[in-house]
Amino acid sequence: MRYTVIFQPSGKKAYTDGQHSILQISQEAGVPIESLCGGKGICGKCRVVVENGNEKLPPPTEREIKTLGELINRGYRLACETIPACNIILRVPEESRIDRQVILTTAKCVSAKLDPVIKNIYIEVPQPTLDNPMADSERLLTALKGDHGFHNILIDSMVIRKLPHIIREYNGRVTVTIWDNREILDIASGINDNLYGIAFDIGTTTIVAYLMDLLKGKELSVKAAMNPQVAYGDNVVSRISYCAENPDGLEKLRSALLRCMNTLIEEVCEDAGIKPKQVLESTVVGNTVMHHIFLGLDPQYIALAPYCPVIQSPMQIKARDVYLEISPSAYVHILPVKAGFVGGDTVGVIIATEPHRRDHITLVIDLGTNGEIVLGNRNRLLCCSTAAGPAFEGGHIKWGMRATSGAVESVRVDPETLNVELKTIDNRPPLGICGSGLISAVSELKRADVIMKKGNFNPEISSPRLREGQDGPEFVLAWAKETGIRSDLVITQQDVAELQLAKAAIHAGITILMRRMGLTSIDRILLAGAFGTYINPEDACVIGLIPDCLSANIESVGNAAGAGSCLALLNKNKWKEAERIAQKMDYVELSADPEFNELFVEGMFFKSRHTQVSTPEE
Amino acid sequence: MRYTVIFQPSGKKAYTDGQHSILQISQEAGVPIESLCGGKGICGKCRVVVENGNEKLPPPTEREIKTLGELINRGYRLACETIPACNIILRVPEESRIDRQVILTTAKCVSAKLDPVIKNIYIEVPQPTLDNPMADSERLLTALKGDHGFHNILIDSMVIRKLPHIIREYNGRVTVTIWDNREILDIASGINDNLYGIAFDIGTTTIVAYLMDLLKGKELSVKAAMNPQVAYGDNVVSRISYCAENPDGLEKLRSALLRCMNTLIEEVCEDAGIKPKQVLESTVVGNTVMHHIFLGLDPQYIALAPYCPVIQSPMQIKARDVYLEISPSAYVHILPVKAGFVGGDTVGVIIATEPHRRDHITLVIDLGTNGEIVLGNRNRLLCCSTAAGPAFEGGHIKWGMRATSGAVESVRVDPETLNVELKTIDNRPPLGICGSGLISAVSELKRADVIMKKGNFNPEISSPRLREGQDGPEFVLAWAKETGIRSDLVITQQDVAELQLAKAAIHAGITILMRRMGLTSIDRILLAGAFGTYINPEDACVIGLIPDCLSANIESVGNAAGAGSCLALLNKNKWKEAERIAQKMDYVELSADPEFNELFVEGMFFKSRHTQVSTPEE
Repeated sequence: MRYTVIFQPSGKKAYTDGQHSILQISQEAGVPIESLCGGKGICGKCRVVVENGNEKLPPPTEREIKTLGELINRGYRLACETIPACNIILRVPEESRIDRQVILTTAKCVSAKLDPVIKNIYIEVPQPTLDNPMADSERLLTALKGDHGFHNILIDSMVIRKLPHIIREYNGRVTVTIWDNREILDIASGINDNLYGIAFDIGTTTIVAYLMDLLKGKELSVKAAMNPQVAYGDNVVSRISYCAENPDGLEKLRSALLRCMNTLIEEVCEDAGIKPKQVLESTVVGNTVMHHIFLGLDPQYIALAPYCPVIQSPMQIKARDVYLEISPSAYVHILPVKAGFVGGDTVGVIIATEPHRRDHITLVIDLGTNGEIVLGNRNRLLCCSTAAGPAFEGGHIKWGMRATSGAVESVRVDPETLNVELKTIDNRPPLGICGSGLISAVSELKRADVIMKKGNFNPEISSPRLREGQDGPEFVLAWAKETGIRSDLVITQQDVAELQLAKAAIHAGITILMRRMGLTSIDRILLAGAFGTYINPEDACVIGLIPDCLSANIESVGNAAGAGSCLALLNKNKWKEAERIAQKMDYVELSADPEFNELFVEGMFFKSRHTQVSTPEE
Repeated sequence: MRYTVIFQPSGKKAYTDGQHSILQISQEAGVPIESLCGGKGICGKCRVVVENGNEKLPPPTEREIKTLGELINRGYRLACETIPACNIILRVPEESRIDRQVILTTAKCVSAKLDPVIKNIYIEVPQPTLDNPMADSERLLTALKGDHGFHNILIDSMVIRKLPHIIREYNGRVTVTIWDNREILDIASGINDNLYGIAFDIGTTTIVAYLMDLLKGKELSVKAAMNPQVAYGDNVVSRISYCAENPDGLEKLRSALLRCMNTLIEEVCEDAGIKPKQVLESTVVGNTVMHHIFLGLDPQYIALAPYCPVIQSPMQIKARDVYLEISPSAYVHILPVKAGFVGGDTVGVIIATEPHRRDHITLVIDLGTNGEIVLGNRNRLLCCSTAAGPAFEGGHIKWGMRATSGAVESVRVDPETLNVELKTIDNRPPLGICGSGLISAVSELKRADVIMKKGNFNPEISSPRLREGQDGPEFVLAWAKETGIRSDLVITQQDVAELQLAKAAIHAGITILMRRMGLTSIDRILLAGAFGTYINPEDACVIGLIPDCLSANIESVGNAAGAGSCLALLNKNKWKEAERIAQKMDYVELSADPEFNELFVEGMFFKSRHTQVSTPEE
């Protein structure tokens, strides 16, 4: 006899001869159902709901009754215990699906199939006997081979140390965490359904850590901190100089970075109520200089022509070898870098925004201390890097701050009265201004003619808000009594100049890439960066960050580099994709482009709206 | 045209069309000739001597003249530079041969082909350009692939840190040290012809380190030290108890061991004038308890039935992960253990003495704190372990000492006068007595009837040498004025009893293995151990260490466990051999044998000579 089994929600149809469990049928049919214990009726992970045909199934087994309890009345069964000899329709509930799509809250429009490089496997290891006193490790590996078909598995040396106790705690019942079907990174007694990873985005100014539950595909905690290396220089070139000029410079920068990362690890773990040693996988993206310092590699040749890094390829490295205080057995996956000034963060931005998978042309701009620009489609990607300065992340701005609670993220200025409306993160009284707030403010002041073409404040305007401050002319966004800082919140002439430098660099970079590709228009523009919630595309056009805003669909996608790091953590296939991107993409060295200087100067101005890419106004 | 090339001393014949270098012809013909630079005429390693046909060869190239100088007049040529279009006879001198046989001074009768797991490769890495700013690592790997055909090579993360400076020092000319054709463990600028490894033998009482030159196959320095763990118990069972009873017991024992090993590393390196960081490979043998403590593995289950270890298989582990202070990138190869009480030291003894390669039956006895016994031939090997106590290594003996300068290593006692003749190591005035000296002394005292059947001193003998001492009866081997210790050198009744316990255990073990194999005679008996220079086989028979001395060819082979460790260092193929031995050999658990106790008691007596194996005298 042949019976039909239909799996919902995919609608996949399979046939059975009445001799196989639902789990076996699903595996045959390619319908992925979670099963930690490998079909032994122990873990209770392979729950399915019978939507049609329940009455014709054999009654629930003792194991099902014990594991499912109440749920049985609602049609739940264990796929590994139920052998259907009838036509049935099943639903695989969200929690039993292996190929769940995960939506990242970190960045817009990004999702990934959950398929991390580590997984948990439950096994029962036989006890040794006088006749066969096989060692603990060998019994474990033999059981893993027999039950799950794993061959040539290594055990991390730190894990072997835990083995004799864990293996005896519940008579050989253990859960091992296996990395890449190759190496055991952890062992726990009994059933263990915890699986955690941390994704890092190491920026020149800001470091972000994302703690993810790799079984559920959920973000558990996100914490950010100022990169403590800012004490040694506020951009990558000054950090390189520090390394080159001080014998212990590299080590100082590396250990400052590691202290910060380890503190973030503690914070996200405390937030989620887990221990750092439970974190068994990590991914890292960072620009090439941060990448090098993290790895203890001298970055000095990055600053010298031909600007070549020490290593470009992706790396797998033990957490203990880079002093990251998660499980010492864990691997850290370091995404590849492209060039001296286009790093793993840009590769992360690409895997999170996927310009390489589309036919139409995408322009991605990652606004950080360095502004990395990627242009292209599935046929070709070009990239370059410009020194944008820390303005977008709140650095060098009088009241600049990171995009956290209390930061001004958008501004409205009444062109008549010059009255100001501020929107802050969490709607708290303003404490400072983040990247998107700065862009919004300057854009509004431009619209209200408070800021003029060259960036100077309009001397003809008379308003108590426009005044001479300690550092020269300044515009008051909020009076002391409206703020949380007991001081007037202002934008200074110097702040505007910082933003002008940044936008000019971006402008020049975009223009050169477009010319290299022979393009005059772009289908889609993505603004990425940890600059705040989201930049208003209008504002980005007004200040001239983007050459020609009208021809494209502009979208602000948030911290895509961080999202890329998370995606690589959630799905190991992103590693190969990242490696291919880094190899295939062409790098443009702006410093070698004869047009760069001219375009940079041109980009300093605030233009009238609706002008074309490369037609400077004067 | 076809020309004949004959390589001496092998006499191998090859043919050439006049288009290929001698190096290419030798590679084709399977005649291994050293070539560090891969045939670039740079390293000067591939020297050959033309014995016949020199006048028909093209004249030496500039490179040959520069590299060989004087030697050219003596017929030397570089194999990579010389293209013969004539019949010639060449000699490959010792220094150019890759497959040199190495004779170990450590133990008798052992030699190995020199084929270590690490090797040096000279390469020239192209400089980066603005058009192709490929990273340092990737340029290195590309060159290694192009010049030497190495694919998928990893670079240890510590080595990557040295890369940017080394690669620029001599314009990309570097020598890399590659482990197992898989991973770069070191990089040096220019040509580097240093290659060092250290073999360890970790005994319960003594630790020995052997520094070897892995290019020349030479022993550079050997140093031994007392295992500092003796402070925590003098045998493996008391060490296990210490670990089980003290929460930090394992860590204390491990760190004491490591301090000692690291001191030995410093000593052998200083002796040879090299730095510990230049040591790029290490091998370790040890009994299972030492093996576990070295690796930080809890040994407590070894002492509990069914006596199973935490891990048996051989391991490759980074030196930095076991805190061994050689190059942090180096691997430590840990030989496999067989069972809880038959460790990697016994496996080392077997690869050094090779009973598994012979048709006739060999009995190998490794005399240490544990006495491990191996019996068999190429068809079958049996092994067991007995607690022999530290007597063979000088422990628990009143004037016992390690086999170093000044130790009594053999004794003659005149049966008439009881005058004593001593032979000491280095012929210095005696400072104490080592294992072989103790066996010799007891054997002579037995011959002279000073020691009686039950081990007690003969009360009927009247001599100033036989007297009542502080610890009971004792026999004076040397008077204070003859010694270097300002005290009479004596053997006490207790010393004799220690030896009796040891020999009884060995006796019982041998007898049980012989019965299991159904043997009544043995073709060859090998005595291994760090007990001194060499035990006199006669003496071993007289004291009854060996059940039936007459039927076998007895040989004393020295520290074969240490030799096994050295062989594994010199030739990577010994690893697989060791693994196969450990898997194939059968382990006999003596504690589970009903005959053990009876045989042990029987073995306590000193028998008349020429008695049979299992016929106790009374």
